[in-house]
Amino acid sequence: MTKLSLVGIGSGNPDHLTLQAIKTLESADVILLPRKGDEKTELADLRRMIASELLSSTPKIVEFNYPVRDADTPKYLDGVNTWHDALAAIWQDLIATHVPENGTVALMVWGDPSLYDSTLRIADRLIARGIDLDITVIPGITSLQMLTAAHAIPLNTLGGAVQITTGRKLRDEGWPADTPTVAVMLDGECSFQSLEGDDLHIWWGSYVGMDQQLLIEGPLSEVSAQIVKARADARASNGWIMDIYLLRKSA
Amino acid sequence: MTKLSLVGIGSGNPDHLTLQAIKTLESADVILLPRKGDEKTELADLRRMIASELLSSTPKIVEFNYPVRDADTPKYLDGVNTWHDALAAIWQDLIATHVPENGTVALMVWGDPSLYDSTLRIADRLIARGIDLDITVIPGITSLQMLTAAHAIPLNTLGGAVQITTGRKLRDEGWPADTPTVAVMLDGECSFQSLEGDDLHIWWGSYVGMDQQLLIEGPLSEVSAQIVKARADARASNGWIMDIYLLRKSA
Repeated sequence: MTKLSLVGIGSGNPDHLTLQAIKTLESADVILLPRKGDEKTELADLRRMIASELLSSTPKIVEFNYPVRDADTPKYLDGVNTWHDALAAIWQDLIATHVPENGTVALMVWGDPSLYDSTLRIADRLIARGIDLDITVIPGITSLQMLTAAHAIPLNTLGGAVQITTGRKLRDEGWPADTPTVAVMLDGECSFQSLEGDDLHIWWGSYVGMDQQLLIEGPLSEVSAQIVKARADARASNGWIMDIYLLRKSA
Repeated sequence: MTKLSLVGIGSGNPDHLTLQAIKTLESADVILLPRKGDEKTELADLRRMIASELLSSTPKIVEFNYPVRDADTPKYLDGVNTWHDALAAIWQDLIATHVPENGTVALMVWGDPSLYDSTLRIADRLIARGIDLDITVIPGITSLQMLTAAHAIPLNTLGGAVQITTGRKLRDEGWPADTPTVAVMLDGECSFQSLEGDDLHIWWGSYVGMDQQLLIEGPLSEVSAQIVKARADARASNGWIMDIYLLRKSA
C-alpha cells in the first residue's frame, strides 16, 4: 500500500505552514512538485522554497508538468473531468516510477485540500484505477481565512449562516437564499458586478497573505468600480492574479 | 496604542499551530489565558502546554476566569451580547493592569478567530469603549477543516456551493436552498434528526483532531441513531463534547 499525504500549505506565506504539515512533508519518501506554467512561477517557487528551506530533512523532490485544462471544452464539468483524468494518469506513473513499495508520497496543496481543490478527486481516481492508496489529509490555511484575517472581520454574523460559492454560481443564480454572508471564490470575472442593492458591503482581497496583498472594502455600490480597476492593474503588472471576497447584507 | 493579536491555535492538537501563530505568540508581551470551568479543563491545558512547551520565548501569562453565559436569558442574542460586554470589561481591566504602554497582548483562540468565535466582537467593544487598539488576526485550522481532513473528503462538490450554519438554524429553517452541502456547527442537540429524506449522507466527528476523535459516516437515515448514542456516551465519559458534521445531498 502506498501512503498519499495531501498537505495544505496555506496561501502564499511559508509561515502559514502548520507544524503537522512540516512533519508530514519531512517524513515523506517523495514530494511531487507541479510546474504550472510561467505565470504561476511564484507558486511553484514557494513550494520549492518550503521543500529546501523549511524542512529539516528533505525527501526526494520529483517535479512534473501540470496539464492545462482545456477551457474550450463546451461543458465546464466535462473539461474538468478530462483534466482530472489526465492528472491521475500522471500521478500513477510518477508513483510507480519514484515511490518505494509501502512508501509515502506527499503533495503540497495551495490552501486546504478540502476547499475548491482537485487533489482529493484525483486521488479517488487512482483508487478507482486499482491503486492501493491510503490517503491522509493535512489541513492548511485557506485564502478565505487569510481574507477575513487581513480585514480583521468575522466570517459569520452572530449566529448567522455563511454561503461559500463560486463566481459562476453568483452570476447565474444571484444572491443565495437564507444567508446574510456570501464568500466568493474562483471568480475570474468580478461577478459582484451582477448584484444590485445599496445594502451590500464587500471585503475584497487579492494575493491575500502574500507580499503583494491588496485589500479594498466598502459599500459595494461605492467600491465596485475601484475593485475592477485594481484587479485589472494588478493582473497586468504581476502577470497573474488570485482574488477572493466576502459580501454581507446590512442587518 | 495597544496591539491585540488574536491567534487561532487549531482544534486540539498542538501540531495544528502555524509558524505564524508561534512567532506571534512568542513576540507578545502578555498572553491572556482563559479558565473556562472544570469541564473544559483540557482546552485550557492545551493553551498552557502551547505557552510552556512550544514557544522558544515565553511572554508573561495572565490567567483569568471566563464568565459563564446566562443560558436562561429569554432571547439568545441578548444573552450573548450581555456575555460579550462582561468579557470586554474583563479584557479592558487586564490590559490596563498587565500590558505595558504600546505593548502587545495575545489571545489564543480555539480554531480560527473568524468562524463562530466571539473574540473579534469583544475586541470591537473595547474600541467602542475608547481603547486605542490595533487588532491583528492570525488564522488557525478550524474544526470544520479537521472534520473534512479526518474523513478525507472535499468540503464542496465540484463547483458546488457550501452553506455553513448552526444547529439552531437547521432546526428552525430546514435545509438551506441552493446548496448540495451543509456544514453544521454549534449544535448541542443533534439537529440532523429534524431532517428527512433518503438522499442525505452525513460525515460526523467529535473531538476532531484530538486523541479522543470519534468519526461516523453513512446515509443519514442509517447512522442517525448511532451518532446520537455515540455522542451521549462520549459526553458522559469525557464530561464535555464538541462535535461538528457535514451533510450532503446525493447528486
